[in-house]
Amino acid sequence: MDFDLVVKNGFIVTAAEVHPPGLEIGVKNGKISCIGVGLPQGPNTKVIDAEGGYITPGGVDSHVHLSQRNCPTGDNWETGSRSAIAGGTTTIIAFVSQEKTNDSLIPVLRDYQAKSTDQSYSDYGFHMILTNPNKTILEKELPMLAKEEGITSVKLYMTYEPMKLSDRQLLDIMTACRALGMTTMIHAENSDMIDLIIERLEARGHTEPYFHAFARPQLAEAEASYRAICLAEIIDAPVLLVHMSSETALQHVRAAQGRLLPIHAETCPQYLYLLSEKLKKTEDDHYHGAKSVCSPPLRHEPSDLDCLWQNVANGTITTFSSDHAPSKYNVPGGKRLGLINGIPKFTKIPNGLPGVETRMPLLFNRAGRIEQGNRITMPRFVQVTATNPAKLYGLDGIKGSIAPGYDADLVIWSIEKENGVTITNSMLHHDIDYTPYEGMTVKSWPRYTILRGNVVWDRDNGGLIGKMGDGKYLKRGKGQILNGRTGNPVKGMATGEREHWA
Amino acid sequence: MDFDLVVKNGFIVTAAEVHPPGLEIGVKNGKISCIGVGLPQGPNTKVIDAEGGYITPGGVDSHVHLSQRNCPTGDNWETGSRSAIAGGTTTIIAFVSQEKTNDSLIPVLRDYQAKSTDQSYSDYGFHMILTNPNKTILEKELPMLAKEEGITSVKLYMTYEPMKLSDRQLLDIMTACRALGMTTMIHAENSDMIDLIIERLEARGHTEPYFHAFARPQLAEAEASYRAICLAEIIDAPVLLVHMSSETALQHVRAAQGRLLPIHAETCPQYLYLLSEKLKKTEDDHYHGAKSVCSPPLRHEPSDLDCLWQNVANGTITTFSSDHAPSKYNVPGGKRLGLINGIPKFTKIPNGLPGVETRMPLLFNRAGRIEQGNRITMPRFVQVTATNPAKLYGLDGIKGSIAPGYDADLVIWSIEKENGVTITNSMLHHDIDYTPYEGMTVKSWPRYTILRGNVVWDRDNGGLIGKMGDGKYLKRGKGQILNGRTGNPVKGMATGEREHWA
Amino acid sequence: MDFDLVVKNGFIVTAAEVHPPGLEIGVKNGKISCIGVGLPQGPNTKVIDAEGGYITPGGVDSHVHLSQRNCPTGDNWETGSRSAIAGGTTTIIAFVSQEKTNDSLIPVLRDYQAKSTDQSYSDYGFHMILTNPNKTILEKELPMLAKEEGITSVKLYMTYEPMKLSDRQLLDIMTACRALGMTTMIHAENSDMIDLIIERLEARGHTEPYFHAFARPQLAEAEASYRAICLAEIIDAPVLLVHMSSETALQHVRAAQGRLLPIHAETCPQYLYLLSEKLKKTEDDHYHGAKSVCSPPLRHEPSDLDCLWQNVANGTITTFSSDHAPSKYNVPGGKRLGLINGIPKFTKIPNGLPGVETRMPLLFNRAGRIEQGNRITMPRFVQVTATNPAKLYGLDGIKGSIAPGYDADLVIWSIEKENGVTITNSMLHHDIDYTPYEGMTVKSWPRYTILRGNVVWDRDNGGLIGKMGDGKYLKRGKGQILNGRTGNPVKGMATGEREHWA
Amino acid sequence: MDFDLVVKNGFIVTAAEVHPPGLEIGVKNGKISCIGVGLPQGPNTKVIDAEGGYITPGGVDSHVHLSQRNCPTGDNWETGSRSAIAGGTTTIIAFVSQEKTNDSLIPVLRDYQAKSTDQSYSDYGFHMILTNPNKTILEKELPMLAKEEGITSVKLYMTYEPMKLSDRQLLDIMTACRALGMTTMIHAENSDMIDLIIERLEARGHTEPYFHAFARPQLAEAEASYRAICLAEIIDAPVLLVHMSSETALQHVRAAQGRLLPIHAETCPQYLYLLSEKLKKTEDDHYHGAKSVCSPPLRHEPSDLDCLWQNVANGTITTFSSDHAPSKYNVPGGKRLGLINGIPKFTKIPNGLPGVETRMPLLFNRAGRIEQGNRITMPRFVQVTATNPAKLYGLDGIKGSIAPGYDADLVIWSIEKENGVTITNSMLHHDIDYTPYEGMTVKSWPRYTILRGNVVWDRDNGGLIGKMGDGKYLKRGKGQILNGRTGNPVKGMATGEREHWA
Repeated sequence: MDFDLVVKNGFIVTAAEVHPPGLEIGVKNGKISCIGVGLPQGPNTKVIDAEGGYITPGGVDSHVHLSQRNCPTGDNWETGSRSAIAGGTTTIIAFVSQEKTNDSLIPVLRDYQAKSTDQSYSDYGFHMILTNPNKTILEKELPMLAKEEGITSVKLYMTYEPMKLSDRQLLDIMTACRALGMTTMIHAENSDMIDLIIERLEARGHTEPYFHAFARPQLAEAEASYRAICLAEIIDAPVLLVHMSSETALQHVRAAQGRLLPIHAETCPQYLYLLSEKLKKTEDDHYHGAKSVCSPPLRHEPSDLDCLWQNVANGTITTFSSDHAPSKYNVPGGKRLGLINGIPKFTKIPNGLPGVETRMPLLFNRAGRIEQGNRITMPRFVQVTATNPAKLYGLDGIKGSIAPGYDADLVIWSIEKENGVTITNSMLHHDIDYTPYEGMTVKSWPRYTILRGNVVWDRDNGGLIGKMGDGKYLKRGKGQILNGRTGNPVKGMATGEREHWA
Repeated sequence: MDFDLVVKNGFIVTAAEVHPPGLEIGVKNGKISCIGVGLPQGPNTKVIDAEGGYITPGGVDSHVHLSQRNCPTGDNWETGSRSAIAGGTTTIIAFVSQEKTNDSLIPVLRDYQAKSTDQSYSDYGFHMILTNPNKTILEKELPMLAKEEGITSVKLYMTYEPMKLSDRQLLDIMTACRALGMTTMIHAENSDMIDLIIERLEARGHTEPYFHAFARPQLAEAEASYRAICLAEIIDAPVLLVHMSSETALQHVRAAQGRLLPIHAETCPQYLYLLSEKLKKTEDDHYHGAKSVCSPPLRHEPSDLDCLWQNVANGTITTFSSDHAPSKYNVPGGKRLGLINGIPKFTKIPNGLPGVETRMPLLFNRAGRIEQGNRITMPRFVQVTATNPAKLYGLDGIKGSIAPGYDADLVIWSIEKENGVTITNSMLHHDIDYTPYEGMTVKSWPRYTILRGNVVWDRDNGGLIGKMGDGKYLKRGKGQILNGRTGNPVKGMATGEREHWA
Repeated sequence: MDFDLVVKNGFIVTAAEVHPPGLEIGVKNGKISCIGVGLPQGPNTKVIDAEGGYITPGGVDSHVHLSQRNCPTGDNWETGSRSAIAGGTTTIIAFVSQEKTNDSLIPVLRDYQAKSTDQSYSDYGFHMILTNPNKTILEKELPMLAKEEGITSVKLYMTYEPMKLSDRQLLDIMTACRALGMTTMIHAENSDMIDLIIERLEARGHTEPYFHAFARPQLAEAEASYRAICLAEIIDAPVLLVHMSSETALQHVRAAQGRLLPIHAETCPQYLYLLSEKLKKTEDDHYHGAKSVCSPPLRHEPSDLDCLWQNVANGTITTFSSDHAPSKYNVPGGKRLGLINGIPKFTKIPNGLPGVETRMPLLFNRAGRIEQGNRITMPRFVQVTATNPAKLYGLDGIKGSIAPGYDADLVIWSIEKENGVTITNSMLHHDIDYTPYEGMTVKSWPRYTILRGNVVWDRDNGGLIGKMGDGKYLKRGKGQILNGRTGNPVKGMATGEREHWA
Repeated sequence: MDFDLVVKNGFIVTAAEVHPPGLEIGVKNGKISCIGVGLPQGPNTKVIDAEGGYITPGGVDSHVHLSQRNCPTGDNWETGSRSAIAGGTTTIIAFVSQEKTNDSLIPVLRDYQAKSTDQSYSDYGFHMILTNPNKTILEKELPMLAKEEGITSVKLYMTYEPMKLSDRQLLDIMTACRALGMTTMIHAENSDMIDLIIERLEARGHTEPYFHAFARPQLAEAEASYRAICLAEIIDAPVLLVHMSSETALQHVRAAQGRLLPIHAETCPQYLYLLSEKLKKTEDDHYHGAKSVCSPPLRHEPSDLDCLWQNVANGTITTFSSDHAPSKYNVPGGKRLGLINGIPKFTKIPNGLPGVETRMPLLFNRAGRIEQGNRITMPRFVQVTATNPAKLYGLDGIKGSIAPGYDADLVIWSIEKENGVTITNSMLHHDIDYTPYEGMTVKSWPRYTILRGNVVWDRDNGGLIGKMGDGKYLKRGKGQILNGRTGNPVKGMATGEREHWA
């Protein structure tokens, strides 16, 4: 019982409970080794006093784009991962992205590994984006990824010309993943609906950023989400629908979960806070809206935000991620790509917002005692920001929880004396020249971020004190199913039939 | 007030009412000219006594395949239309079927016209099956069809390799049809799901006809139906989902109708009466099940039949059609195509059942006073067999109703003395060597069928007394929307935006 | 073929169709005897030219309070029925109201008969309000009412202290009515919820009319409606929920109808047009809101109106009635009863609005071709204003339809040259000193009202030309079930069990 | 870091996680003081080896009837609480039951306290059953109960003549409880429906126990559950619906939870395992069914059991309790009360089953890895058997969790070598002469039960080694809301209005 670090005097929050101050967390060799009362402190034990603040697991952000082509002028591993750390996120899962011309995933993976090795401040893992699922990939490479590389999740697109897959491809990949215990993430929007609307908008000259919000209506998300659920049901595979933003789509998810289908849902800070009005031009910048172009787009009504908060609170949403996929605004090559000869073309604007650093504070902002007007409880905050993504993506027992045996990844939240923390881009650590939350005030910010027992962010003393390369690559195991189960019956299919192929 | 024909002494049924005997129907020049009490009879007035039976509008069967490639050895216009007449159907709408290699619809149409002209016992019209909707077809030929040829409906497939369309093609066609007031019929099954299951079944050697019922589960219909509804919603176009057989799919339809979306639904006799057990081999015929192969397939449980009856009764189902698409069983080239070297291959069996003659009696069988155990009321019978298809397909004012001004197309139903009418193939007038309803007893059969004032079927005196060529081609007008309306708002679309393109 | 009256040159509308001009209606001895083309006109045949306007069945208003205690200073039979005629309503069904102190219905009925005999301009019938359903009433008097007096419907209250019944009383009455084929009308609001809220509002001094709208929230209607549906389901009895105004309540109705439960729903003009803002004080009249006090109260949001229109259009609403239950505003004893020493007490304001005359024009106002922006079709207008109430309340074959054999009750609608008809109280024929629709413009008004072949309202020539006493008392038969059926199974009840008692 | 007890070598299960063996639980002074790896053992440290089995929190059974009039010849505190301990339950919450003649709760409470003090093997608390909520009780005694006696929950009945409350009484109690942070438990069945059916069954001589299952159909539960939810919504109070057994009722709960209403649901082992066939007579005992009479009754179909399991798994069910309310079968005065002169009268049979000892093993039986065919996960088992009831009933931080600071109440589950544990009444510790689960085999049984650090049940060495009086009375704090929140808006209520009274 000899500890390298003891954290004391805070409200420890797990996915199930809020413990009052009194409990201490003992850390040894980077892992939590003990939680108890009155832990012994040796001469080499460092002690951190949480000063009565909340202590939550280090954030797991399972939807981050770094050094990826579709985020030109966006963050690389250094800038993205340091930004994560400064915002309380100790684990990120980023994407390796196959392109349709890549017949093998291996060189692609090696390329992304090269870009990330020794570059990360935070621990990290990879999802694989599949855009060209040939036989070799399905039969040989996916097993290799799962078993050797610890990549146990894939992401699939139902929209975007360069990435989108047919229903059959979705089914084939899900079938392969099911056998390997891999989780399938799906970007669900009906591609053809969107293409049609875009054509019509363009024909009428409606190419300003604001029209992006009309080009991808909620119905496109609702349809594709239901389709993805049906495909998952027939093949009996677990899926996660990423960045959900539509009430009807969430109703389909909730109904599926009620029937115990293994359907999971993700949402992001932007769908809880931002509305399409941000896509409008401002008085002095006609292209300003480009900053807020992401897909699915920001929705129109405050009631849309309420709906999302409700689904975070009622348990329908499984994970809360950033979808950090930024591009710079004021330099050539990023968001400027949507300006063609000075004329905005929303279809050419790189999609995505910066958000890996603000994710945790933005949700924490409305977490706490419900009777004090908060939207969600503290355990719910922990579930969606850390515990659930860790379990869903095969990091259970390592990440996502404050319990002995887990990595000592912790966030200690600040006690703000007065008016909270006002977000400005200047305080952030990404390499992006704006934040969509500029000027918004949140009630707290990480006072400390601790990665495997080491303080890597100390807001009041040095700020970012971790170093590039601190982060370790995580070989992930099989994911857990958090909603429902496999093995549910399907009307019109013979009992047992599915076992042989799905 | 001089009549060619007076029909008296029956219960006249309309879409709204059952009139007790006492009312008479006066016919002049092939049209109903008067409904009243004590109509004058001139010397040339023929009088038909209904003997206290029901008098309903001549049936309108809006889903009939005749002389079409996908029904090899099936009925041609002569045999199919005489079968219709003998079963109380005075109007059929059959299909002209584009093939993907046809770049223009005109020669196809001319070909089908050639096959039908002067060949029909019943009045008739055409739907156009689109499989290759190129620009010329959408912009030039569809308007021509609607305005010159009186073809105001198209049928689209979401499944079957040779016919299936992408979402975008569906959207483009719906957009074109919307502008022309044309109705879109959709065969909604998820093609990729089905392909996958078929591959797996085949890999396991499961190729007997019975497996057809497992190859196309209800979920495939539910998914595609919901997708079709979403596509229709975004484009604001009326659609009819053909031959529905799945509870979940019907729930989507009912929800859409509740929101006033212009979504219509069709079902067929087979989904009210037959179960997948009919697809099994019999003791003396291992291929027997091929007779009952149709798509969607017969479902498995009696509760599936109950669900369909419920949706006919509660108004969700708009039209009741035969989907008459038969092939002979005992001759080369029809259902035998699914026997490859004596081994059944369900994927090669021509889909479809004979049913144009039995359609009306099978539904009439459970129509009547609900408190006497019937499933539906008599007006509901009239709605789904005649009034609704007439209105939906642009024949309002001409067909589908017993009212002055309408064609005098009437069915007078028999009063069976004892045990009803037992269906046998030998009593039917199609050119098919079996009926799936062999041995089933129904409570009544058309005593007379009257086409534009002429008795063409007199069950007790000569049977089929109409002649080939009696039937006229119907140039149809714009269809009516029977459920909901266009113009409903869509979340995330700008008000008024749709007007410019949908 | 000799007619007393021929009506020609209008669009004849039935529950199923709109017939173009050309058809004529022949009337003989007060009944429609013929509908046809080119009817012969004898020397004594009166001819009315509809001038291209719509001809609909005379309205059947199945919810009218006349000469009833709970409408002090309201209309009596003379003033109420003449108002009906002037607004196109030829049949009203009013209430005989038992009080809890009445142990027998007979004297009450005789009293109401005395007040109405020879007093009515329109044909009329009675519903019986039961407030004290003792054994004699259930076993002896209800059968007498149904069989001898032609009163085949009862109305029951779940709220209002002097009238409200327990669940058990509702069940006992439904059981008795079921055996007699009587329809049960239910005013469904949760009484205890409302009482509690009223107490609290009063304790805070919130007694102005406006608070009436908060005292009876939609939830009170939703709960009681669902309870009524469950009671009806278990006892297998048809019911009609009167004056529905709440979206959730209507969702329960629609779900029940989908399952074929015999549940019917009524709404009224006020729930399609008026909002709670009308309950507010005006600058010069702090008590003005009292004019618009009715129960359920006017709701708050335009979306509430939309919801009601939607449910009229989608078929969930079965009948459209006035709930004409007015009291005068500016004289002692009516609406003034809610002014105690000059201080408003909303709980003392007599509930109810005048509306028997404006009912038909207000719905007609938004009926017509949907593609021209109307809310409902003309046949739907006919269904809910005439056909459905006639069928539901046992007048089928006599009232509610334009068909041979039916009473010749017709409304011919005006063709307004310019800006429609602006409603003012001065043009109305009730004996009430205000209308809540003052200043509202509708597109048409009855040009003629015809009662059993006699013109009783000729807007341009004499106005009200019928006479008191023209109206006949209608002995009604058993009602029809318009939605669903009886005999549906109930979970947890033995098959067949219900037959013996329900 | 000196422990009285260390428990090691088991899978520790919390509401959120399953920890692999390696973690140890250190106990000091009856509380868990530490969870960690390699805890130091002093000379006085007792060590228990879990032998690789699961370690779960001691069960909290929040629905137990002891020494209560409505369980004649049932268990008293001694026999009931020892039975709890032997089945892994360390905390029971039993009922103090006001009778309608009691104008004050105080003497009643004192009476129940006298019966329980020093009599319990397990820790315990009380709910208060209110049947006569007068002003003094609501205004003075409830606050006293909550603040001084630690009784922070009430139970209310919507059925049973001696206990049932009106809607208004429910509302008044909920209002009072809301202000005090008390939770309201509701037995929801429509009393009048049941009374009617019973009368009819009796009139037909159907008084055998089996008819009990038909006397209280699911519809009675569905209606009352929805009503309770509506009452709770309008008053904005949290409720728990006890012993739910009906699919439709659970759909109402799930919909309410989705909208964040604070609605909780309980079910019991009997609704997961037993069907109404158990109510039938056996060959040698015509009264056998009386053993299984409880309310709501056992349902009829295996699909009813599936539905309940599904709702435990999908999170709709909040707590899993025994509703232990037994009566002896073979002695005078208990179940025999339903035999009148040898003739069974199901209405006279005391309701209730024994189950406090079998509750935990029966649910544990289907808990575990879902992919191995279990119905629920181990964390879900912990949630519904311990964590949730502890939180909901104000024992958070003390009971229901394995975490430092909590009472060291633990169950260590047996590793059965072969065929599991077959339940027989002879192995149970209640004072009842039968168990409805006789002969059923479960996979495990508590190997040890530990109460505040003391082994009170050691299955292999002495069995029940705790003593009467070991159990302490628990003054409970305010309950937590586990589903949803208060403060949700209600249609038709003014914002903020509710704060002043609800």
